[in-house]
Amino acid sequence: MIERFEVRFSGAGGQGVILAGIILGEAAAIYEGKRAVQTQSYGPEARGGASKSEVVISDVEIDYPKVTLPDIVIALTQESADKHSIDLKEGGILIVDDFFVKRIPQIKGKLLHLPIVKTSVDTFGTPLFANIIALGVLCALIEGLVKKESFEKAILARVPQGTEDKNLRAFNIGYEIGRAAVD
Amino acid sequence: MIERFEVRFSGAGGQGVILAGIILGEAAAIYEGKRAVQTQSYGPEARGGASKSEVVISDVEIDYPKVTLPDIVIALTQESADKHSIDLKEGGILIVDDFFVKRIPQIKGKLLHLPIVKTSVDTFGTPLFANIIALGVLCALIEGLVKKESFEKAILARVPQGTEDKNLRAFNIGYEIGRAAVD
Repeated sequence: MIERFEVRFSGAGGQGVILAGIILGEAAAIYEGKRAVQTQSYGPEARGGASKSEVVISDVEIDYPKVTLPDIVIALTQESADKHSIDLKEGGILIVDDFFVKRIPQIKGKLLHLPIVKTSVDTFGTPLFANIIALGVLCALIEGLVKKESFEKAILARVPQGTEDKNLRAFNIGYEIGRAAVD
Repeated sequence: MIERFEVRFSGAGGQGVILAGIILGEAAAIYEGKRAVQTQSYGPEARGGASKSEVVISDVEIDYPKVTLPDIVIALTQESADKHSIDLKEGGILIVDDFFVKRIPQIKGKLLHLPIVKTSVDTFGTPLFANIIALGVLCALIEGLVKKESFEKAILARVPQGTEDKNLRAFNIGYEIGRAAVD
């Protein structure tokens, strides 16, 4: 039984962090049978292209839908790493992209500095799969909470038609990166 | 200055209500300069294919991100109309699809019973544009809050590549249906 597990995806507009949050929320709720709330909050900073997507997962009813003390923060840009890792839970995990994030913010948790965007570019010739690779990394960390199979079903239901194979491949590559990072 | 305006989209899985919520949130925040929070809550009912997406729009910081007393509820199925219109604000507006919603729930506001799915099928040969037609209807009702142009920019940024023209057409058809309904 988990009472509350909080994940935040952050990055620039166009990096697909909103889709990543939706897929995680649906994996947890529709395919895993848990409760989940997935939120986008846009403030004045949204005009600058910053993007943030949050998911709360629970086995019980979720009273407050916003992330207040994230267990895991994923940041795909320097700006988002600087801004959105501040409230990481003590002992939480910060996952940052090693191409876009060069200065590591001070955190009270564990850092994973991983080739997310670079792997997307090297494998697919485009950074567009970075969000799904990040989901794979995340899956390796929270498999006890949301199974790999549930992630895969949610990915297949949400990605554009015709891109299913590439997205599943991206997810599995991310999963291996995550597994290697925590071993 | 608006302190809090709440919109809820509801329907079955696959009807695109989550995308509709994201587009409304981005239209309001990124293109209109307001604050917005967009939320999906999944409970046990998510397994049955029900889908709900909520947006809070404000000129000031949004303290509580969930919809508590919606100004507008859009329901594309009977189940969602029955379930998600209960807390409609007094004097609010309930928009229901006239193909899927035959029994009108008791509400304290105004009812718009409109051919959303039917128009999608008649025009495009598929129900898949119902969500964007519903956004057009909504736009006709809240143009003072979020301009038509902001909706259109948000649609163009979010719909799959290659479907921009059809989606803009669907939006404009919905807009005309909405205009006619409130005149």
